[in-house]
Amino acid sequence: SGLVLVKNPHLDLMEEDILYHLDLGTKTHNLPAMFGDIKFVCVGGSPNRMRAFARFMQRELGLAGAGEDVADICAGSDRYAMYRAGPVLSVSHGMGIPSISIMLHELIKLLHHAKCRDVTIIRIGTSGGLGIEAGSVVITDTAVDSSFRPRFEQVVLGDVVVRSTELDKELAEELLACSREIPDFPTLVGHTMCTYDFYEGQGRLDGALCSFSSEKKLEYLRRAYDAGVRNIEMESTAFAALCGLCGLKGESCRFHLP
Amino acid sequence: SGLVLVKNPHLDLMEEDILYHLDLGTKTHNLPAMFGDIKFVCVGGSPNRMRAFARFMQRELGLAGAGEDVADICAGSDRYAMYRAGPVLSVSHGMGIPSISIMLHELIKLLHHAKCRDVTIIRIGTSGGLGIEAGSVVITDTAVDSSFRPRFEQVVLGDVVVRSTELDKELAEELLACSREIPDFPTLVGHTMCTYDFYEGQGRLDGALCSFSSEKKLEYLRRAYDAGVRNIEMESTAFAALCGLCGLKGESCRFHLP
Repeated sequence: SGLVLVKNPHLDLMEEDILYHLDLGTKTHNLPAMFGDIKFVCVGGSPNRMRAFARFMQRELGLAGAGEDVADICAGSDRYAMYRAGPVLSVSHGMGIPSISIMLHELIKLLHHAKCRDVTIIRIGTSGGLGIEAGSVVITDTAVDSSFRPRFEQVVLGDVVVRSTELDKELAEELLACSREIPDFPTLVGHTMCTYDFYEGQGRLDGALCSFSSEKKLEYLRRAYDAGVRNIEMESTAFAALCGLCGLKGESCRFHLP
Repeated sequence: SGLVLVKNPHLDLMEEDILYHLDLGTKTHNLPAMFGDIKFVCVGGSPNRMRAFARFMQRELGLAGAGEDVADICAGSDRYAMYRAGPVLSVSHGMGIPSISIMLHELIKLLHHAKCRDVTIIRIGTSGGLGIEAGSVVITDTAVDSSFRPRFEQVVLGDVVVRSTELDKELAEELLACSREIPDFPTLVGHTMCTYDFYEGQGRLDGALCSFSSEKKLEYLRRAYDAGVRNIEMESTAFAALCGLCGLKGESCRFHLP
């Protein structure tokens, strides 16, 4: 049916669903009227960038109000920011798996309550590239953990549940085809490694703690490259797992900062 | 010596240290002049709350400018917000372990570069209480993981390193003594459980996914209570581990929302 799925039998029994961190709710807002026609959701870490992206989409789509500022739909909460431009929703998710998870749980319920159909969700933003040209865009085929395994470990009531982190291959191909029209950005498809930490977890030598040598760092990154990893960030495994389970066509598409 | 420690031999060899997510750096800012007299750092998730807290401290300490707005020292970045009120720094850390980790790495380096001495760091904010009166304040003696173990697992170059999560017992006692002067808030010392997820990880029945019954949820929370857990949040183990390793006198102090 193309509807966004929630997999929670308790939700039907609730009189009201408060999407707390988005400052939205089923009793306080008419979610189908506000969001029913959404077809694309783009998510990224920084609220400012997601506002800039919504304004960019407004201009690209030739929408009324283009050039004017866009309103933050979640203005009542400072946890996340949300903007819309026609059928495109632009949402910030902060940094790291726990932060994007909270946002995705509430976003998926939002799309479900709003009865949205055939929604595509794309994660955009920056990442650290691995053996690729600065300024490249990496489209993720599979998100992998810090041991290069295509899996996401979710703790449910103290027990570890392992989830798949494959993303939509067809959507990856479509995005790659689009990239051929933009010659300025070298674009490739590869694995994306997701870590819980920016400094020690990604082999950086400039954190407050660092117990390894430059050689050990390079050896680890070389092993990651050999396993097919082309960029490193901090949200993709949870994103892939949640989108996959809830029937959202999802893809991650990251720009390697020069 | 009371100095904040960094445990990274590479830092001494760097010509410049850019605290990227704070929009500060050793060449662009005179960190000792800006921060050398800081004695307390209070951190919490929400930027708005940390601004409100800085304004509150300004009034409480009778500082010049009390009542006026405070300037965001990290205004050039939308990742974190930072305010100061006399010797108190008030910093937001977003939600979850990865987000607070990035901030703490850069904050610890900031305090180190600024040559701060005898710094106390206190995490403030809200949390979910467990078997305690709504409106209570929990002072953490030990942060535990979702299996109630007093440990933080940090992945370093793909390998798991286990770190201690004990907090400063003396500081906990001092804070408890302070609380006796404020009769409005029941205050207790207990374990704080730290999870990577707000919904499935904390036994909530209202996420986009939920595979367990209300009974299983209660059974898990009962086991947590029996293990000494009195509140649940998403940052304390990483906070305790990093503060402990870097010689910061640290404590976590959370308000259980009514």
